[in-house]
Amino acid sequence: MPEPIRVLHYGLGPIGVRIASLAVTRPNIVAVAAVDIDPAKVGRDLGDLIEHGSPLGVAVHSRLEDALKAGQPDVVVHATGSHLPAVLPQFLECAAAGLPVVSTCEELSYPWFHHPDEARRLDDAAREHGVAVLSTGINPGFIMDTLAVVLSAVCPVVQAARVRRVVDLSVRRMQLQQKVGVNLTVAEFAARKAQGTLGHVGLPESVAMIAAGLGWPLERVEQTLEPVIAAEPLDSALGPIAAGRVQGQHQIARGWAGGEVRITLELKMALQAPDAGDFIELDGPEPVSSAVRGVQGDTATAAIIVNAVPTVLSAAPGLHTMLDLPPVRSLLA
Amino acid sequence: MPEPIRVLHYGLGPIGVRIASLAVTRPNIVAVAAVDIDPAKVGRDLGDLIEHGSPLGVAVHSRLEDALKAGQPDVVVHATGSHLPAVLPQFLECAAAGLPVVSTCEELSYPWFHHPDEARRLDDAAREHGVAVLSTGINPGFIMDTLAVVLSAVCPVVQAARVRRVVDLSVRRMQLQQKVGVNLTVAEFAARKAQGTLGHVGLPESVAMIAAGLGWPLERVEQTLEPVIAAEPLDSALGPIAAGRVQGQHQIARGWAGGEVRITLELKMALQAPDAGDFIELDGPEPVSSAVRGVQGDTATAAIIVNAVPTVLSAAPGLHTMLDLPPVRSLLA
Repeated sequence: MPEPIRVLHYGLGPIGVRIASLAVTRPNIVAVAAVDIDPAKVGRDLGDLIEHGSPLGVAVHSRLEDALKAGQPDVVVHATGSHLPAVLPQFLECAAAGLPVVSTCEELSYPWFHHPDEARRLDDAAREHGVAVLSTGINPGFIMDTLAVVLSAVCPVVQAARVRRVVDLSVRRMQLQQKVGVNLTVAEFAARKAQGTLGHVGLPESVAMIAAGLGWPLERVEQTLEPVIAAEPLDSALGPIAAGRVQGQHQIARGWAGGEVRITLELKMALQAPDAGDFIELDGPEPVSSAVRGVQGDTATAAIIVNAVPTVLSAAPGLHTMLDLPPVRSLLA
Repeated sequence: MPEPIRVLHYGLGPIGVRIASLAVTRPNIVAVAAVDIDPAKVGRDLGDLIEHGSPLGVAVHSRLEDALKAGQPDVVVHATGSHLPAVLPQFLECAAAGLPVVSTCEELSYPWFHHPDEARRLDDAAREHGVAVLSTGINPGFIMDTLAVVLSAVCPVVQAARVRRVVDLSVRRMQLQQKVGVNLTVAEFAARKAQGTLGHVGLPESVAMIAAGLGWPLERVEQTLEPVIAAEPLDSALGPIAAGRVQGQHQIARGWAGGEVRITLELKMALQAPDAGDFIELDGPEPVSSAVRGVQGDTATAAIIVNAVPTVLSAAPGLHTMLDLPPVRSLLA
């Protein structure tokens, strides 16, 4: 067996912990360093933090340079933030340290339409330092974008692409229910929407990735976000939800090319949402559709990030998207 | 717009004609040469052969070297045969001429388990001459193998993979009905099965591709082939089918790894087969499934071959499989 891949875990929030917990089960991966800015985590052992049952001998540091003094990784697994401008310095720091990166950063999954300047800067830095960078995940990164492009392989012509993801929040963690706005009043939902603190990050990136994958000249992307209102009292991880309060959200992103809507992505996340799953429709003279079941966001995000580690290590230097690389796959067990 | 890709169409049977008919509609592709050994086709114009409505100024030649005197292609689109040992000389000839190849050859889609010597010879020749070679298609090539591996990206652990393809032969061409054995007696089916002239080619290749994609050490592959018997009279493209005669076939391939069956591929092709579609199940602690509808073998095979042309042109030299390359996608319209 070859030497295991040495990973630095950068960001140990709920998703980072999930990723580290899965990575530690893989015989081809070993954690050698960890970074998180949370003072409650700094100094703790990674094994303790992920409830591994035993210490891993890897202390959490607040700064990358300190973590690198403790352990020399082959690759950084990064899960700190959704917004590319905010986390770009972290990527640049990794690149400067000669470290390839696999990230969950939603806006980096396809940054070339919405953040072309940041994308170019990071691509330049990655090439200069000879490292590959990839952001992936379930949504964005796979289920509403890459998979639609992959499926198009069988189509002589695709005229329009529609993807619908339905998430039953009743079976998801409390933080996600909170993030989506469960139990808000309709007025509170409207206020938080106006502040920009509600709504899933990444649908416009998925629209842009599909457009790029299918060669469509994307002109603009528009999003809508509406609450799903409880018609009757419901249970939730946040306690009972009264009728008339928010039980979820319904978000739609549309992409225009050639003056018409050619891409429609619909994300519904609500308590007790019926027919949970991921549904792709590629329109054309020979329409093709797919229905995928069982893709639970957190678990699957951890999986695709860990599964992408070998892919990124064998990729050419530069900033990649899932459309540039051979398929990420579950390589073990 | 960049110069269109110049294609040589090698093999103009039913699938080759479908491919050429689709390719001619693509603005980024132009046919410059054609090869087929059928004396009824040699000397005819490709446009005539594919019922394009007007000549394409491309004559069909019986030999590659003659076709290359008439037109200089960037890439060969190859659709002559299913069995790698039989068509290997054609691939070697293309490689020696410095031509990348996209092929429908079923046994080449994943040749490394069943035909490792031929695979190595072709890989060596392709590298020596600096050209990329890929075989793809729907089955094998995509719907029962690549797509299952792609889907595994979201799985923390895959314990077993099952894929079922159900084809309703009632809506497919006569040649396919004939090939499957429609209207044979049960005894005739058994006799032709014993001769090895029945059964779909490629399930073992799909098993081997999944095993390789998921990192499972494949030990052996076994196949079964049974007739589907008409319980009542049926219509077919071959005329009426009496009860008791063959209305289709049911083929199963199983792949063993670690002493147990971890891959099961089931192909049912029958007249009036209910619930046509493609169904993947990846077993594990977090099982994932997909159901794809609308993938009609001939149309979709032509599509994926034409869609793979730009992919192969930008690939590194050598023999590739769909697991080595970025996703093939429908790049136009």
